[in-house]
Formats: sequence, structure tokens, C-alpha cells
Amino acid sequence: MMKNKQILLERRPVGPVKDEDFKIVVTQTPELADGEALVQTVYLSIDIPLRLWLEHDIPLDGGFKLPKVELGKVVTAFGNGVVVESRNPDMPVGCSVGGMLGLQEYTVVKQGNPFNHRLPDGIPLDIALNGLGNSGMTAYFGLYDLGHPKSAQTVLISAAAGSIGVIVGQLAKNEGCRVVGLAGSDEKTRWLVDQVGFDAAINYRSEILDTALAENCPNQINIYFDVVGGAILDVVLPHMANHGRVVACGTMAEESGPGTWSGLHQLYNNLLKRRITVVGLNAADYMAQYTEAGAKLMKWSQEGKLRWFETVIDGLERVPEAMNALFEGANKGKMLVKVSEGA
Amino acid sequence: MMKNKQILLERRPVGPVKDEDFKIVVTQTPELADGEALVQTVYLSIDIPLRLWLEHDIPLDGGFKLPKVELGKVVTAFGNGVVVESRNPDMPVGCSVGGMLGLQEYTVVKQGNPFNHRLPDGIPLDIALNGLGNSGMTAYFGLYDLGHPKSAQTVLISAAAGSIGVIVGQLAKNEGCRVVGLAGSDEKTRWLVDQVGFDAAINYRSEILDTALAENCPNQINIYFDVVGGAILDVVLPHMANHGRVVACGTMAEESGPGTWSGLHQLYNNLLKRRITVVGLNAADYMAQYTEAGAKLMKWSQEGKLRWFETVIDGLERVPEAMNALFEGANKGKMLVKVSEGA
Repeated sequence: MMKNKQILLERRPVGPVKDEDFKIVVTQTPELADGEALVQTVYLSIDIPLRLWLEHDIPLDGGFKLPKVELGKVVTAFGNGVVVESRNPDMPVGCSVGGMLGLQEYTVVKQGNPFNHRLPDGIPLDIALNGLGNSGMTAYFGLYDLGHPKSAQTVLISAAAGSIGVIVGQLAKNEGCRVVGLAGSDEKTRWLVDQVGFDAAINYRSEILDTALAENCPNQINIYFDVVGGAILDVVLPHMANHGRVVACGTMAEESGPGTWSGLHQLYNNLLKRRITVVGLNAADYMAQYTEAGAKLMKWSQEGKLRWFETVIDGLERVPEAMNALFEGANKGKMLVKVSEGA
Repeated sequence: MMKNKQILLERRPVGPVKDEDFKIVVTQTPELADGEALVQTVYLSIDIPLRLWLEHDIPLDGGFKLPKVELGKVVTAFGNGVVVESRNPDMPVGCSVGGMLGLQEYTVVKQGNPFNHRLPDGIPLDIALNGLGNSGMTAYFGLYDLGHPKSAQTVLISAAAGSIGVIVGQLAKNEGCRVVGLAGSDEKTRWLVDQVGFDAAINYRSEILDTALAENCPNQINIYFDVVGGAILDVVLPHMANHGRVVACGTMAEESGPGTWSGLHQLYNNLLKRRITVVGLNAADYMAQYTEAGAKLMKWSQEGKLRWFETVIDGLERVPEAMNALFEGANKGKMLVKVSEGA
């Protein structure tokens, strides 16, 4: 039995999370039953679903859903860690386990839970949550299965310095596309061009977006890979090419509340004029193809065609701070909270 | 030379068109040049593009566009009529011609204009603009090419008593779908169920739409065939099934101006939760396949599997009235203005 620091959902947040939305408690880990393993959390993924299911169920196919977090319960989170006690021979002490953990130092993982899986030995746990985790899978399936990139097309990426954006941008460059990113600071736009290899990047906070899009996307936009939505979508849609595709992979602007945004009033006018498709992605739909996609991404990484970027914050109790930092765009690449070094 | 009553665009309308947005003039038809034919208008199609290009270009593939109407010029309109003078041997006097005419009694049609074509002999001119015109093509390609209906799926149709809706509904019934319509009066909802063969119809003005959708679409909505957009879309999206498809074929709500509608604020949240696709259609993209589609529709019509519905208003000068009547939903089936009996 170990002391287990846990973060519970105290009330449903509105807009940015506040400390009062959560409650930190310390419990004891339970005695394990047959088939259970105790995982010591190493990394937690700070991502959009983490914010989404504080308020909403996320339905999956076949009647399944990722249920919203219940009040008073440990907040669900993607993460990974190391098995420190085990009564499950498939997950022996010392092996790594990923998937649905919680905002806590230790999680009991039950045999047969489809949302937990043993990780192959030898994969660094940060990369397991970055390129091989939800960010990498969202980038991969969003770009290839929904975006259908073709050489010389223009791909615009919102939150381009974020975990998904930096991967999408590199993949699209490998396909011969012109890649343009949106980011919230000059430091990040410079970083995208100089370090990540984007063709251009626009600071949507300081530049006139409409003008900057016209300048940087002279052949219009074929694919808009968007994890934001909201007011920026309004400005982007008129710059889309005929039969352009908007891959909606996140709702950062909508999740932060309407604010001063007046809402989309010209969606269909834009869609009809250019016969645009807008499609929502949940990478979990592709779970059966994760291994195959992961192998490709690792191969590209080993060949030097794909690099991993991450921002790591230390300490479980800093998760709420990290969540807001994510929505404020404080990260470059994948944002992680490191909870422990592992056993 | 004939007297030619014409309707010119005097100013760009905002919301519903007003008489002052137009100017009626009477000119003389010009002397024909080689390759030209003079078409006496019989029917004009009262449809959404007619309203759309008073304000906007409609881009087509390959850099082509349907340009917005110039101020002071005859308003462009789809219609058809009969050739009364000809210096084009391919369009002899007495034959029927369809396509881009204007809001006028006579139109000079030039040889080689891709937007005009001789109609096959023997097709009634009203049906040429209904099932064989833009409405039929929008219904056909929207449903089959973008909607992908499967037996036992639920298809919701907005403006269901309109020209496109009554065709989509009949086609979807033929595919074995559950077909639910939205219309603006009890008379129209009864008509849809009793006369057109819909499984159910909802009066969105008098019923609580959210509740009525839950009751009438118990297995959720797989395809939303939408010519409206706006506030109703907001209510429909949470009722879509996983991987549901919204086929956007018109923008009636957006064209009428925002009004009291607060705009879409939860588009991506809905798209992501159920991985919905929203796609804009312009039937003109499918022009190369019109003949084939028309033959199928005519065959179904002859087999009794598809019926044509229309509302006809007499008199060119009543076009503005007819345009507003269309947006107010006064029509059942295709709305036409009859300009003459033809020579």
C-alpha cells in the first residue's frame, strides 16, 4: 500500500479551469485483486480530451463512449507509467503501461480493460505519449485519412506549435506540401520556420490574419488542420480552395467559451461557394490501426524525417496550471506533466 | 425585333429582396449575329442561386465562376424557353433551350456558351427545371454522392416541402431509409406524410424541435440534407449519429441575414463528439453527369417511384415576390415563374 495523491473533480469548470474546480486528496492504494496491476504514473498527457470530458461524454462507435468525469471522482487522463505491484502475469512489475490512467500518482489497472495496454519495452515514455500517443495518432489519421494531402497543395495548421501541429507540419512537408502554421507569438512562428521546417508561420495575434493568409497561401488552402475552431475558422474559410478540407481535431476556442466571438454566421455560404468539407476526427476511432501507424512514425523518426518536440512540467499538482497553459499556447510540441521517475 | 421586358439589379439586397432592389425596363431585342438564337422565356427557376449571386460570385472548378450579377445589368437566372429567331443551325426556331437566361422575356443565346443547351424534344419545360434541373441534380448528387444513404438509416431533410426536399425524400424512401422532414406549417407537414410519402414531418415553427427530433429520429440522424443552415443546424447537430453526414445544399437562413440567431458556437464540439462530416454541394460540379442522372430520374418517374411537385406563379414582374415567397416557404415542390406560353 502506498500513499496516493489524487486530483478529484470538485465542480464542472466553465472556460479555463480554476484550482477550486479540483480537490487534491491523499488516499492509500488498495490491496490488489487477481488480475490487477498497480501502475506508478510517470507522464500525464496534457491534451484537449482532458478538458473535454470534464464536461462531456465522448461517444465512440458501437455504442461505447468515453464518459465524462463524475463529480467527486479522480479525473481521467491519458498517461503512462511503470508497474510497481502486480497480480496480472501479463503486466509484471517493471513493465510499462499506457492508456487511461487518472490524475493520480498510482492507478489500479484491471486485466482486460481495453483502454490500458502494456507498452513495448524500450520506447521512451515521453514519446509513447507524443508521437506514438494521441497527438501522433491524431496527426497521422487526421492528415492521411481525412486530409488526403497531395504534393504541392497548401496545408494550413492552427496551434501549429502544439503537439499535433508540429507533427502534421512535418508529415505534410514530407508529402511535398506547402506548410503554413498559425501560432500566438513571434517567438513561436520563428521557431516553426527555423526549427520545425514550416514554409511560413503567421502570428494570428499580431498580424491581420486575412491579409497574412492571402500573402502566405497564394494558391489558397487545400487542407486546414484545425484544433481550435472559433473566430479563426471564420477568417480561414474564405481562403480555402475549391474542394478544400477542414479536419477538425480540437475545439480549443469553443472550449474556452464564446467570449467576444459572435459565432459562425457564414458557414454554409463558405462551404457552398467552394464545396468545402469539414469533418470531425476522434483518433480513438482508429485504435485498431495504432500499431501500424506507430511503426511508420517511428521509422520516419529513425530516418530523420520526423522529430519529436515536447514541453514538460514537473509535479502532479501542476496539472490544472498545465491545462490552462495548453489553452494559452505556452507549449512547444507535446505538453506533458511528469509525475515521477518511475520505480 | 421584339419588345423585351427585363429586370435589372438596381442595388444589392440585404435580407429579403425589395422592389427597389430591381428596376424593370423595356428594351428592344437586338439584331442577331451569326451563331445567335433568340429564346422566348417560358419558365424561370426560383431558386437559391438566384438570390446568392445578387451578392456573391459562385466559384466553379478550374478557375471558372458564376459571377455575381453586375449592378444595372439583367439579373441572371436559370430558365428555359423556345427559340423564336435563330442564326444558329444547332438551335433552330421551335426548339427548346435551357440554362442561364435572365429575368427577361427574351434572351440572346450565343453558340458555344457552356451554360446554355438545347433540350431534348418532348420533355415538358416545367420538369426540365424541376427534376431534370438544378433541384433534381442537387437532390440526386447530394444524396448519392455526398450522403451515401444505406437501408434503414435515418435521413432528415430541411425545407422538406421545397423543390429539393420532396425529391430527396422520395429517393431516400426508395433506398429503404426512414425519412423525416422539417417544414414550416402543419399543412405542409401533413402534405409531406400524406402526399409525398415521408415517414414523419416536424413543424419546426410550432414544435420544440429538440424534443421532436428525439421522438422522430430514435436511432439518430445519419444524413441531414440541409438547404437552410442557421439556427436549426445548431439544434440538429447533437441528434446526429456517429459518422453522420450533413449535406449542405443551400443557405436560406444565412442568406436571410443573422436576425436574432446567435451563430454557431458549438460546431466543432458536435463534429468531434460524433465525427460528423459537413460538406457543401454545388450541383454545377456534376454537369458532365447530368444526362445520366436525368435519365435515371425520368425512368423512376415513369415507373411511378418518383413524382414531380411544383408551384407556379404567373408573370415576369412577380419574380421578386416569388423569391421572397421561396424564402418564406410558400411553395410546395419546385417554384417556377411562368413568363409566357412560348411561341
